Amino acid sequence: MKLQPPRGMRDFPPEEKLLRDEVIALLKDVFERYGFSPLETPVVERWEVLAAKYAGGEEILKETFRLKDRGGRELALRYELTTPLARFIGMHPTIKRPFKRYQIGPVFRDGPIKTGRYREFYQCDVDTVGVHSPLADAEFVLLALDVFDRLGFQIEIRVNHRQLLKDLATVAGVPPELQDTAILTVDKLEKIGREGVRQELIEKGVAPESADRWLDILSVEGSTPEALEAIRREVPESEGIRELLAMFEHLPGRPEVRFVPSLARGLAYYTGVIYEVYSVDPPFDSSVAAGGRWDDLIGNFLGGREKYPAVGLSFGLEPITELLKGRRDQEGTPRRRSVTRVYVAPIALQKEALKVAQTLRAAGIPTDLDLAGKGISENLRYANAYGIPYVLILGPEEHRQGKVKLRDMQTGEEELLTLDEAVERLT
Amino acid sequence: MKLQPPRGMRDFPPEEKLLRDEVIALLKDVFERYGFSPLETPVVERWEVLAAKYAGGEEILKETFRLKDRGGRELALRYELTTPLARFIGMHPTIKRPFKRYQIGPVFRDGPIKTGRYREFYQCDVDTVGVHSPLADAEFVLLALDVFDRLGFQIEIRVNHRQLLKDLATVAGVPPELQDTAILTVDKLEKIGREGVRQELIEKGVAPESADRWLDILSVEGSTPEALEAIRREVPESEGIRELLAMFEHLPGRPEVRFVPSLARGLAYYTGVIYEVYSVDPPFDSSVAAGGRWDDLIGNFLGGREKYPAVGLSFGLEPITELLKGRRDQEGTPRRRSVTRVYVAPIALQKEALKVAQTLRAAGIPTDLDLAGKGISENLRYANAYGIPYVLILGPEEHRQGKVKLRDMQTGEEELLTLDEAVERLT
Repeated sequence: MKLQPPRGMRDFPPEEKLLRDEVIALLKDVFERYGFSPLETPVVERWEVLAAKYAGGEEILKETFRLKDRGGRELALRYELTTPLARFIGMHPTIKRPFKRYQIGPVFRDGPIKTGRYREFYQCDVDTVGVHSPLADAEFVLLALDVFDRLGFQIEIRVNHRQLLKDLATVAGVPPELQDTAILTVDKLEKIGREGVRQELIEKGVAPESADRWLDILSVEGSTPEALEAIRREVPESEGIRELLAMFEHLPGRPEVRFVPSLARGLAYYTGVIYEVYSVDPPFDSSVAAGGRWDDLIGNFLGGREKYPAVGLSFGLEPITELLKGRRDQEGTPRRRSVTRVYVAPIALQKEALKVAQTLRAAGIPTDLDLAGKGISENLRYANAYGIPYVLILGPEEHRQGKVKLRDMQTGEEELLTLDEAVERLT
Repeated sequence: MKLQPPRGMRDFPPEEKLLRDEVIALLKDVFERYGFSPLETPVVERWEVLAAKYAGGEEILKETFRLKDRGGRELALRYELTTPLARFIGMHPTIKRPFKRYQIGPVFRDGPIKTGRYREFYQCDVDTVGVHSPLADAEFVLLALDVFDRLGFQIEIRVNHRQLLKDLATVAGVPPELQDTAILTVDKLEKIGREGVRQELIEKGVAPESADRWLDILSVEGSTPEALEAIRREVPESEGIRELLAMFEHLPGRPEVRFVPSLARGLAYYTGVIYEVYSVDPPFDSSVAAGGRWDDLIGNFLGGREKYPAVGLSFGLEPITELLKGRRDQEGTPRRRSVTRVYVAPIALQKEALKVAQTLRAAGIPTDLDLAGKGISENLRYANAYGIPYVLILGPEEHRQGKVKLRDMQTGEEELLTLDEAVERLT
């Protein structure tokens, strides 16, 4: 038998998990400051929900893990957290809106394995359902700025608008029925270059002169206000440009938020503003967060009678944790390998050691103790192996004096203290 | 299309999820105080790992969700967290021991749907790997006592020992090759009664007089010290009784920890002490935590050359959350429906409202604001619907005075304050 996790999936030992938990705690804190409440949906969804016409789209369905229950029902592992939210709102159509929720959890994609690509990974999503306004759109930019400010990463937030992309396609002469698929091609601009995108657009049936014209418009240069103005001149009546201008009014003095007219995003369900967040320093290849407005998905689930506008952002736990790990390593900050702050090492006083440990634990200090009756030097090696900062030595001599010996594992210094003094020192 | 989660699986809207998160935070805090560090393994495991001879056993495999990846590899959703831990240690056989870890996450069982039984539910596991000692066993009892002390539930912890069960079976004349399956029958004592167990034992090939003798011994009455002594007289050489006696020495003055000689536990891999925790007040039908010693699983995974003793406890998030919810409802404590502490409602001052909200958020106060330009009474209704305790009203008159109006939604009282004063009031 091969002892390993499934291909493309990973274990996170404590030294990795503690870092992940640190990022999750920070994200939760920022999400809650912005008034997002937690929602949890199952890891498994019904296949027909994930495969619905207006959900993630064909590309993502190819990578969806499928399974059946004992009743033969078709199920699947969720590939992201947006469609489950749409399903949840669809089941609770009278929920008071705006409904602001966050969800942090694993998603699954049975895709090819590459560096940094996994078949189980975490998404950390925030979404606002039930309001279509530039202020709602701007809030996610501010939230992302706060997250990365607190992490101390320098980022760039690229912003565009799906409807604007279509309006510009119309101006360039790309027929409406080709626009959705053409946008997915434009999404590859960084990967395959302008010439590659041009070729693919032509293959998809876009006239060469329309492709050129569209790509010319999309490659407008200059600062965000300059680019917005240049694009506005092309499509002065576009609701997309109007919404972007209004959103940027809520974001003065943040040059790291940049209008990128060619930004497209892969997922099928976006309808309005779209965002991609990149780390500039430390640099990182893929995005660290991304999202956008998806006004139609819930309404389509419900048969299209009512509008359920929605907008959100998804943070990638893996890239953020990688960046944090890289910086800590560079700074020489040792990684935490254990939660334990103090390790109680008795010399022939096991029962006393348990009492001491229980006192420290009651005071809120993460405490471990020798469970195996090891010798003192073996106990010190153990504490050292897990990077436990303090060892509390409990020998017959100390015990007679009503004291304990507290050893700082970093400096090797030892102090003879009463237990109360030791508790005080450690809290 | 049916908008619903898979059969036997559930959504947790904020008012449920906030309660679950509260329980998880408490468990994490206690686990870490006891020196357990977090480990995370994938939701999906390789089928052959979960189906290994020494893992969960036949019964549980019948309820295991199976799937395949694109490479045709046989996978499964984990049915508990112990076998994945054994697999992890098996992959890291040189990890410094004792290795103390906790893991909190969903597990999956494709079983029949009954009240309180779900196909996706959370387990919250703590285990110590690499030490076989009564002190290591006792630590889990102390940890469970701390968890439920802090929750304010009165519990009973039932304790027994798998080897002792076997030694008593031997004394009664149950042949060794029938003992494992006979123990699974004894596990049903509460469910099907003594006569039912007796019948099933006989059907499995146990002689009627052996079944009677065994059941007589197992039904010994009296306090824990009395019962331990009575059983010790039957099997004075049993390592099981010796270990139990040593463990109880670490637990003086805790009558809620009770020796129950007939306690058996369903899972196949237990080898030593076993625990089941029940809530007495508030009463609850099923156990709220359970576990035991499983000394052989990891060694068997590795081919049996080295011993990897292990012991642990698994807390059920669902029963604990249900109990907490029940008590809160009984006390009349309103359920939290949102994380938001204050809602900013502007009167024609949307941009100012965003600034105010950002100030409150920067101060760590979970804040929401009107994103849709609603009227004041609609905003008050919104805050009320989500149980948000404060609304900060921002009208032109207040704005002229450089003030805001803070409304306590419970009392209806309103105060005119500077923003700094409001921040201070809310932190």
